[in-house]
Amino acid sequence: MTNDPPAASRPTVRTIADRAGVSYQTVSNVLNFPERVRPATRERVLEAIRELNYRPNAAARSLAMSTTRLVALRVGDGRQNEASILDPFMRELARIGGQHGYRLVLDYAPEDDAAQIASFEELHARQAVDGVVIPQTHVGDRRPAWLLEHGLPFVAFGRPWGDLDAVHSWVDVDVSLGIRMAAEHLRDLGHTRIAFLGAPLDGGLEDARLAGWRGVVEDLVDPGTLANLQRLVDQSCPAGPVSDLVRSAAPTALITRDDSYAVEASHILERLGLRVGRDIAVVGFDDSELARRASPPLSSVAQPVSEVAELIWESLIDQLDERPNPPLHRIVPPRLVVRESSAHALGR
Amino acid sequence: MTNDPPAASRPTVRTIADRAGVSYQTVSNVLNFPERVRPATRERVLEAIRELNYRPNAAARSLAMSTTRLVALRVGDGRQNEASILDPFMRELARIGGQHGYRLVLDYAPEDDAAQIASFEELHARQAVDGVVIPQTHVGDRRPAWLLEHGLPFVAFGRPWGDLDAVHSWVDVDVSLGIRMAAEHLRDLGHTRIAFLGAPLDGGLEDARLAGWRGVVEDLVDPGTLANLQRLVDQSCPAGPVSDLVRSAAPTALITRDDSYAVEASHILERLGLRVGRDIAVVGFDDSELARRASPPLSSVAQPVSEVAELIWESLIDQLDERPNPPLHRIVPPRLVVRESSAHALGR
Repeated sequence: MTNDPPAASRPTVRTIADRAGVSYQTVSNVLNFPERVRPATRERVLEAIRELNYRPNAAARSLAMSTTRLVALRVGDGRQNEASILDPFMRELARIGGQHGYRLVLDYAPEDDAAQIASFEELHARQAVDGVVIPQTHVGDRRPAWLLEHGLPFVAFGRPWGDLDAVHSWVDVDVSLGIRMAAEHLRDLGHTRIAFLGAPLDGGLEDARLAGWRGVVEDLVDPGTLANLQRLVDQSCPAGPVSDLVRSAAPTALITRDDSYAVEASHILERLGLRVGRDIAVVGFDDSELARRASPPLSSVAQPVSEVAELIWESLIDQLDERPNPPLHRIVPPRLVVRESSAHALGR
Repeated sequence: MTNDPPAASRPTVRTIADRAGVSYQTVSNVLNFPERVRPATRERVLEAIRELNYRPNAAARSLAMSTTRLVALRVGDGRQNEASILDPFMRELARIGGQHGYRLVLDYAPEDDAAQIASFEELHARQAVDGVVIPQTHVGDRRPAWLLEHGLPFVAFGRPWGDLDAVHSWVDVDVSLGIRMAAEHLRDLGHTRIAFLGAPLDGGLEDARLAGWRGVVEDLVDPGTLANLQRLVDQSCPAGPVSDLVRSAAPTALITRDDSYAVEASHILERLGLRVGRDIAVVGFDDSELARRASPPLSSVAQPVSEVAELIWESLIDQLDERPNPPLHRIVPPRLVVRESSAHALGR
């Protein structure tokens, strides 16, 4: 048995009114200004709506339920390699949101906090979305405070650097552990002179990467060698630093901050006569297509984007449904994917 | 002078009613059921709304204006290399949509038409978006007919294969011309034995690629050699076909259907002892990060995603604003980006 009426007699506001024994206007009020209708009457109308399986259009329903089933995610223009991890993340967020009945709205905005906050402001004023996901947290991030202050539900992809007890919800990947796993893998293959190619320190993510490497390698070499084995460079010109690293520290393995660095470094190493995977091991980060399609294929640290997306939706839906759960503070472990670039024990 | 009231006295439905000299309910009707209000009264209320710079929330306004300022784009899980061109396209569509006051909603759906149509059906029933963009058209595509029949405005990224006079709007890139430009570039460098590595024919896109190559190369070699210079393979196992191609046809240049094919083929060529850019020229397609970061960097055909996104928004907004323009049927030319993999004349 079903209450679904045939398409030809799809219920209208008029049908609902007749069924509930109220005026057209009262039904409209229940949908649009429910606080203006007496509870008993409201209940009668809602009952009729349920019985007739009435589906007002999305805008009418949004107004009645104060929900859009939409969540905004900021996107940029994809330069500076953000695409390598954020594009798969965006797809997973869209896929898993769909399973929960939510869709993702792309909110194009420049990288600076002020521009993104201006966009939140507009979305919030128009009540155009139920919440937002903020990617790429950084030291001094102004977005969480604005969102908290204005009561727009959100979850950050990235921890609140310098303030892990912040009251908002966030999910992050343990990048420090990821680099550590790479270093331990190389150590277990017999490497001691394990170099690190990172980006300039930023008090947050880049420091965490360096710490992951340092935690393993400082037990393997003396402090002078340790200092010599690290290079923190802007991606634009890695050739000089990589040549210098090879000449001065003669590493047998190299860990890099991301796959782009790994691919660029590999090219330079090959040009210096070092065969990647034979004369020198290389491990990247993000497990992107760049790593998978390199020759030889590059070992890389994979970020668990599906798990991150799941956790973000869970926390967001908790907030939207006003469940009294505490904010989510979660750091999830990454996974090392070993490929030919670091498959052999040192000296074999 | 400005009509903007201070934030503290932001206009409400009540303020509008007072200004227009009508009841609260009449204002609500103008916003929600304008057809139920007499034209003269409606005009008076709209005038008050304009004077007071009243901004109803997005849901209320959507209801009044029958617009969401949202357009849906289907996304998949990014396998099968679709990401290389669709991710940049998605970002450009979001960026340019923002300039027109629209945002993009990601609609996650599997690749088959039926699943995507089911999603359109839901979006349409809920009036959740103003229109949709359908990417990746193919022979026998069932989506355009459904969308036309149900009156949901849309533009396709991809031509209607086999029916270029179809009545809906579409924008496509001239992939055949792109491959032709690559072949002419190689011919001008002195190459005659220019091979083509494509995907199995599909009656649409893949045939167009092959035709672009064939149009140039059939004037350079005899028919037997022409047949020998082409391989149409599923990407999963290109090693055999590429080795076979080199052994049987000794090409001096290779054009591939996309950058993934180009990168994989380059690895195999190098393993066969052929230096890419020296012993054999290679040109890919899509101008992705894979091509830019290869060693040597690969020449590639760039798709004008910004131009495509601009045209799609123009046509979509024409439809949404009900301008009586004819449907857009536009094929835009791509651009060849020459890099080290095909920079040298044959024999130099």
